[in-house]
Amino acid sequence: MRVRLVVEMDLITKLIIINKMRDSWIEIKPDNDFPLENIPFGIMSTPGWGPRAATRIEDTVIDLLALSEAGIFDQCEFSAREVFQAPHLNDFIALGKEQTSAFRKLVQDLFSADNLLIRDNKALRNTALFPIREVSMHMPVKVGDYTDFYSSLEHASNVGTMFRDASNPLLPNWKHMPVGYHGRSSSVVVSGTNIHRPKGQLKQEDSDYPEFGPTRQFDFELEMAFVTGLETSLGESVSVEKAEDYIFGMVLFNDLSARDIQKWEYVPLGPFLGKSFGSVISPWVITLEALEPFRVKGPVQDVPVLPYLQSQSAGSFDIHLEVFIRPKNRPEQLVCRSNFKHLYWSISQQLAHQTVSGCNIRIGDLYASGTISGAAPDSFGSMLELAWKGTRPIFMSDGSSRVFLHDHDTVIMRGHCEKDGLRIGFGEVTTTVLPAKQSI
Amino acid sequence: MRVRLVVEMDLITKLIIINKMRDSWIEIKPDNDFPLENIPFGIMSTPGWGPRAATRIEDTVIDLLALSEAGIFDQCEFSAREVFQAPHLNDFIALGKEQTSAFRKLVQDLFSADNLLIRDNKALRNTALFPIREVSMHMPVKVGDYTDFYSSLEHASNVGTMFRDASNPLLPNWKHMPVGYHGRSSSVVVSGTNIHRPKGQLKQEDSDYPEFGPTRQFDFELEMAFVTGLETSLGESVSVEKAEDYIFGMVLFNDLSARDIQKWEYVPLGPFLGKSFGSVISPWVITLEALEPFRVKGPVQDVPVLPYLQSQSAGSFDIHLEVFIRPKNRPEQLVCRSNFKHLYWSISQQLAHQTVSGCNIRIGDLYASGTISGAAPDSFGSMLELAWKGTRPIFMSDGSSRVFLHDHDTVIMRGHCEKDGLRIGFGEVTTTVLPAKQSI
Repeated sequence: MRVRLVVEMDLITKLIIINKMRDSWIEIKPDNDFPLENIPFGIMSTPGWGPRAATRIEDTVIDLLALSEAGIFDQCEFSAREVFQAPHLNDFIALGKEQTSAFRKLVQDLFSADNLLIRDNKALRNTALFPIREVSMHMPVKVGDYTDFYSSLEHASNVGTMFRDASNPLLPNWKHMPVGYHGRSSSVVVSGTNIHRPKGQLKQEDSDYPEFGPTRQFDFELEMAFVTGLETSLGESVSVEKAEDYIFGMVLFNDLSARDIQKWEYVPLGPFLGKSFGSVISPWVITLEALEPFRVKGPVQDVPVLPYLQSQSAGSFDIHLEVFIRPKNRPEQLVCRSNFKHLYWSISQQLAHQTVSGCNIRIGDLYASGTISGAAPDSFGSMLELAWKGTRPIFMSDGSSRVFLHDHDTVIMRGHCEKDGLRIGFGEVTTTVLPAKQSI
Repeated sequence: MRVRLVVEMDLITKLIIINKMRDSWIEIKPDNDFPLENIPFGIMSTPGWGPRAATRIEDTVIDLLALSEAGIFDQCEFSAREVFQAPHLNDFIALGKEQTSAFRKLVQDLFSADNLLIRDNKALRNTALFPIREVSMHMPVKVGDYTDFYSSLEHASNVGTMFRDASNPLLPNWKHMPVGYHGRSSSVVVSGTNIHRPKGQLKQEDSDYPEFGPTRQFDFELEMAFVTGLETSLGESVSVEKAEDYIFGMVLFNDLSARDIQKWEYVPLGPFLGKSFGSVISPWVITLEALEPFRVKGPVQDVPVLPYLQSQSAGSFDIHLEVFIRPKNRPEQLVCRSNFKHLYWSISQQLAHQTVSGCNIRIGDLYASGTISGAAPDSFGSMLELAWKGTRPIFMSDGSSRVFLHDHDTVIMRGHCEKDGLRIGFGEVTTTVLPAKQSI
């Protein structure tokens, strides 16, 4: 009886989905991250043709440059050919939200079930539409600066408990500002880029001298990052109310970390080499517009914040996040399930804080959230927390265990929103741990 | 008798200078930073003509694009027109040291006393040569990433003494690695850019809550920075022996700091908004080749370092550094005299460390030294140290005193090398403190 009911609910859910999702002439499966409502942006290439702008519907990648060259975007107010032939989205984003938003609607219209323009042009479809498996994806933006915040209360508390004082884990500034640090932008790379186990200085507790070698504490950090879409001048500040006008969209962000390198180096100036050997992002930038239906309030901020950080609006998004580890030649295994909405500080607060001193921002900057941990132990966003500083190994289906990542492990992060039958997703960000290089 | 001797020595020195300095048909005064041996590179503009590459001899700025268009560089292996019309030097630097070095020699030859090609072409001289006061200088490079090291033993010791433990001022890692942090590259600006007093969170010792307002501890930091000239791939390391092959040249660097903002925000992730509201660099990149005659050994490193940081070569340079404060409508006043050679860690060690984890570098990155303090109290490279945390005010000739910078103060840093009658200088980096902006 119970089983039958579940099946019926599932059918009803599917019917709701069919009703809610906009129809496209590209078949969209209900559990796909990229329905007609998403229209993300990325940079694709195909054998013989270099990086150029693209969008994606279901598992079909749409070559925006090819469509431009076929004259499909001749009605646009901007030169689509020029903008989409760039090897990054910065020029497109720089058009401003009015134009990028109108462009998203145009794409939705072109791929709607009742629009025959591209659907019935087989030659154009062959030129401009590609199955996702046939394209390579590249860094979507040219990153100016990258900031890494530290905005999860649970993550900061976990780290404070492990390394400082369990009875008083948060530092005094934490609830007054979205604490963050400048990251390294050169080493932000796109999903699918594999990263060698970094080497550096490691110091054992019982030794007077550091030694040199590959990290023994290779970790992931489940994060998301927003991409800025407007620039400011040096000396200018962005108010918390207007901050989202400066944000184009979001990506998944795996902030790889070498905990032992970080631990020895980080006083007094913060993380450096423990964080700059590779940070991996998902290839599709999901616009804030696509995320709008999933807007929620973040956690209550129980310590009053200064006026420049005060906001009444719902500044968070309900984004389900998952992390999987796939050992070599084994199936992937879920190790963490978290949600973006757990974050204590909103993206608007982060950007207001970043600029309050007059620090200028540029188009294509990345602002990462910091590790997104929830309250439940299986929602912690790093191996450091999941295995609690090495004391609670995670057991894998092949009988092996993990307290940190092993060589050849692939880390996969996925994220999506779902509400009233509409699903908008980020796809995934993957990276494989390669063994340390032999030369220094 | 004594006086006469001094005068004679001075005459002898001048004669030596005249003998040593290469003759140019541009008159070069002995105390000028830019003799024919310097040939620095920068980006100039003139009214009606935008940013383009330039060099400088004495106080004459030489428009490299104008010379290219006149066919002067047609013999070069690269397209001078293309490279010099860029609004930054990155493309020129990317040619590699073999070509940039050959180009410097060519310029030296063109402006040598016996070369009449440009000297006797009045029309070309009018098009391509400008008095320094008639041009505007711009950021010389497009900065990818900017790292700020912390490589002065005296500075680190001073800060440790003031804020931590006078009997044990250095943190345990300091003598094992060139400690550093990722800085903000968007806010690195060229000399002459004035900076508003930044606002941010300040917390008094006796208060439970931070307040918001303009910094009360606006400081300069006397630093230098090197510019990278070769790129590496992610995962690649640069050895300490080869590091200088990756360094194109150096600039003066004023790392403006808001000490009170920094103090409240910096745990546990390091300096952030207290440092990202403006860092000012000198406009002319002085090549390592021009600095070669002034190479010296750095201080003895009395704690053994790991092999990847070990180097036998003289890795420092004898560069005299001075900081002046010029209050509004008053003459400038010397407040600090230091030297680059005081730095404990060399630029080669810094770059080897930066890349040892596999962090990739790009052409045009900036790597700053950290505050360059010497042992003598008047050689400290910041107001924090000079006025010792506010306890030893610096008295100005107008009767006012300073423990930190005042609004409308101009900070001027100058640097030059001098040996055997040859002087190679950096010119200066200047910035004026503007009052805090009224809006948030």
